[in-house]
Amino acid sequence: MALEVFHKDETLQMRRKLIGQSCRLFFSRDPVKIVRARGQYLYDENGMQYLDCISNVQHVGHCHPSLTQAAAAQMDLLNSNTRFLHDNIVLYADRLAATLPKKLCVFYFVNSGSEANDLALRLARQYTRHHDVVVLDHAYHGHLISLIDISPYKFRKLEGQKEWAPLPDTYHGIYREDHPDPGQAYADTVKSLIDEAHKKGCKISSFFAESLPSVGGQIIFPTGYCKRVAEYVREAGGVYVADEIQTGFGRVGSHFWAFQLQGEDFCPDIVTMGKPIGNGHPIACVATTEEIAAAFTANGVEYFNTFGGNPVSCAIGLAVLDVIEKEDLRGNAVRVGGHLKQLLLQLQTKHPLIGDVRGVGLFIGMELVKDRASRKPATEEAAHLVRRLKEERIVMSTDGPWDSVIKFKPPMCFSIEDAERVCTCIDQILRGCYIPTQHQLTNGISLGTGLLFVQPMADEGVFRETCVKTVIFAIEC
Amino acid sequence: MALEVFHKDETLQMRRKLIGQSCRLFFSRDPVKIVRARGQYLYDENGMQYLDCISNVQHVGHCHPSLTQAAAAQMDLLNSNTRFLHDNIVLYADRLAATLPKKLCVFYFVNSGSEANDLALRLARQYTRHHDVVVLDHAYHGHLISLIDISPYKFRKLEGQKEWAPLPDTYHGIYREDHPDPGQAYADTVKSLIDEAHKKGCKISSFFAESLPSVGGQIIFPTGYCKRVAEYVREAGGVYVADEIQTGFGRVGSHFWAFQLQGEDFCPDIVTMGKPIGNGHPIACVATTEEIAAAFTANGVEYFNTFGGNPVSCAIGLAVLDVIEKEDLRGNAVRVGGHLKQLLLQLQTKHPLIGDVRGVGLFIGMELVKDRASRKPATEEAAHLVRRLKEERIVMSTDGPWDSVIKFKPPMCFSIEDAERVCTCIDQILRGCYIPTQHQLTNGISLGTGLLFVQPMADEGVFRETCVKTVIFAIEC
Repeated sequence: MALEVFHKDETLQMRRKLIGQSCRLFFSRDPVKIVRARGQYLYDENGMQYLDCISNVQHVGHCHPSLTQAAAAQMDLLNSNTRFLHDNIVLYADRLAATLPKKLCVFYFVNSGSEANDLALRLARQYTRHHDVVVLDHAYHGHLISLIDISPYKFRKLEGQKEWAPLPDTYHGIYREDHPDPGQAYADTVKSLIDEAHKKGCKISSFFAESLPSVGGQIIFPTGYCKRVAEYVREAGGVYVADEIQTGFGRVGSHFWAFQLQGEDFCPDIVTMGKPIGNGHPIACVATTEEIAAAFTANGVEYFNTFGGNPVSCAIGLAVLDVIEKEDLRGNAVRVGGHLKQLLLQLQTKHPLIGDVRGVGLFIGMELVKDRASRKPATEEAAHLVRRLKEERIVMSTDGPWDSVIKFKPPMCFSIEDAERVCTCIDQILRGCYIPTQHQLTNGISLGTGLLFVQPMADEGVFRETCVKTVIFAIEC
Repeated sequence: MALEVFHKDETLQMRRKLIGQSCRLFFSRDPVKIVRARGQYLYDENGMQYLDCISNVQHVGHCHPSLTQAAAAQMDLLNSNTRFLHDNIVLYADRLAATLPKKLCVFYFVNSGSEANDLALRLARQYTRHHDVVVLDHAYHGHLISLIDISPYKFRKLEGQKEWAPLPDTYHGIYREDHPDPGQAYADTVKSLIDEAHKKGCKISSFFAESLPSVGGQIIFPTGYCKRVAEYVREAGGVYVADEIQTGFGRVGSHFWAFQLQGEDFCPDIVTMGKPIGNGHPIACVATTEEIAAAFTANGVEYFNTFGGNPVSCAIGLAVLDVIEKEDLRGNAVRVGGHLKQLLLQLQTKHPLIGDVRGVGLFIGMELVKDRASRKPATEEAAHLVRRLKEERIVMSTDGPWDSVIKFKPPMCFSIEDAERVCTCIDQILRGCYIPTQHQLTNGISLGTGLLFVQPMADEGVFRETCVKTVIFAIEC
């Protein structure tokens, strides 16, 4: 198979013509054409290698040979639908069940995280006979019509304001790291919202939340939050839906699911899975209890998903689980993620721009702020850092309400050396150890860069303060 | 890869425990375990071969080696997301564009027909700034919350009655084959519905219809219907969405898309594609006009679909198009479909149970009726025929509002011999040439059968009439 059919310019031109422009490109002013990948490395059309710090979908590494082999073997045998009996779907459900608390023992297979969340909504509504949903501000649960409705991240831009529960963000939120019990305090905001909703005649079907809000800015829930919220939601007749689409399958290292970070006495009623589940193959899943599944069955209407749970998807899903175990990727997430976080915390002691470093396993956020007192988000600086890292052949991106959080969610085979390389680069960029290329000197400030330190300072302490104040942002066209 | 891990009974037991029971099995009382497949043939765990008359998803035949090869080659190279530039997505969009009228030139790739229809709804609503949708009675457009709302087939069972446009069914509907212009007459029912909607303050965003309603009972739209409907819908400020998920990619033989059967002067504003597009791999697509795409872009919100349009999905999509061309599967659909229809029409002259035979290419319906005068649907007889065909190792199923339509939508490599085999079997079953097995004789009426003719009649004419009247239906447990 040819690595490239068209010259990059032609690809870009065809893309602009043929593909809806709502589908955006990374680095839209100078997008990257990637033609092959392996592990945590991407290669462009000229063979240049990029370190991938953000592809959480390619969970066990890009193009893992075990998955290709499993897919090809099953594609050659059978890829029918689930109206025929087949071993793969039950084998796979059984393997997933073993990772979950006992009560989450019934599975539905679908093709995307969005389909999983839509089905979770249907399950919750059918079981509770209630309609309304409590969600966290800045949450994103998918691109479908039903999910935009429960995704403030999209809803706010498309439709307007609604009432959402505050994001339990102890760095920016109403209760911060100095609060004696932020878990309880934030849970009480959910209780208040439910009470308000009841006054308006609403009936709560569910509380939906990512177990670690990612678009919200790589947020780690405070201790006790989920358990208390689940109690409040269940008191209101609703169920707790844990969206594990970004965070499941061992990304947090210590546990297979991120909701398990909240302790053994917390268990959601529905768990949705997606992204890493098939390493890029379109699979997703909903796990729930026997009671909720029974209520859904009782409506008497078949649920048929044409591709969901087919033998190839399940073969790939099984192979992903095998690789996670065989290569001890959870152990790797603990080791490398822990080291990465330490390195970033060290950088934080050197660079005032770094306001916060948070995360667990290979799910880490580094938040940039204009100054540490006000915690004002350093949106442009974060965008600059991402662009500069790209020049260093490191693919990174931002998240959070102000796009000020540099997010790490790399393939799980990310190494200690990769972590050190990224941190060295970040340090160099923030230190202003940036030598413009000949091209950039000739053309003034480069389009892809946008940030030039006026001058390196002799004294590092002075330098750090000054460089934040003296940045010049190029206006990009 | 082992063909079977568990004994069939164990698979079934695990399935009942682990998979939501809303996900139903074919032949639920005695489901079939299929472990491999090739072309139009399925093989169970004992190596028994079944002829597959219904898997329209496995469009170019089960497990086509070209597709396995294309998938494996691309999986080994790269399977990233569409935020990176890649040639496959533009190559594929370009190839699809060549099959469509010029104005349908912008593409969005998603993972399922349901995701495609949900996005089509969003596009239509964004472009028209209207909300309401006109759909045909008995239509099915997907399993998502937004689509149940526009799928009377599901909505009626889950939520209740609404106003839908009558299905333009010239066999059962309000205007029949003897009407001078059923296309215009049925289009006028859409116009009336729009007028009624306007009186209630509704604003029409779109008319949604499968180009050949399939769950509705393998319906062929009368001439001129779509063009007139499109005019009425556009006058109301809406757009025409052609759901080609079941019917596209050359199934009708003479044309690549079923909407093209309505003539060159009809062109939808949005076309949705799914099922056969990836031969079982989860891909789907929305094609639309530059104007509609521009309106969607103008909302300023990114549309990102994690797996949609990835290099592997597009490689498989391209390979499907290649096989359709190289193996002249459209030509095969014309030849084999034409022959099959002729054979079924011949059976109709012999068996009063066959009320109607309709279809085009390899999309054919044979409707069973209690008697031809009343056209009362022969639901139980259709179910019996499907069960008996299963015993003859032919996989078939029913559709239509009364499940009285035997539907043919086989893999496109279906052969003349396959068509003759099915028709011979149907003839034999309907003629009562059914010799009970020893097991069935020992156990009385078999669970899987349900229909026994009391006695064969000497005179065939008398027999035919009698056999319809004297059927005994076993009560199945």
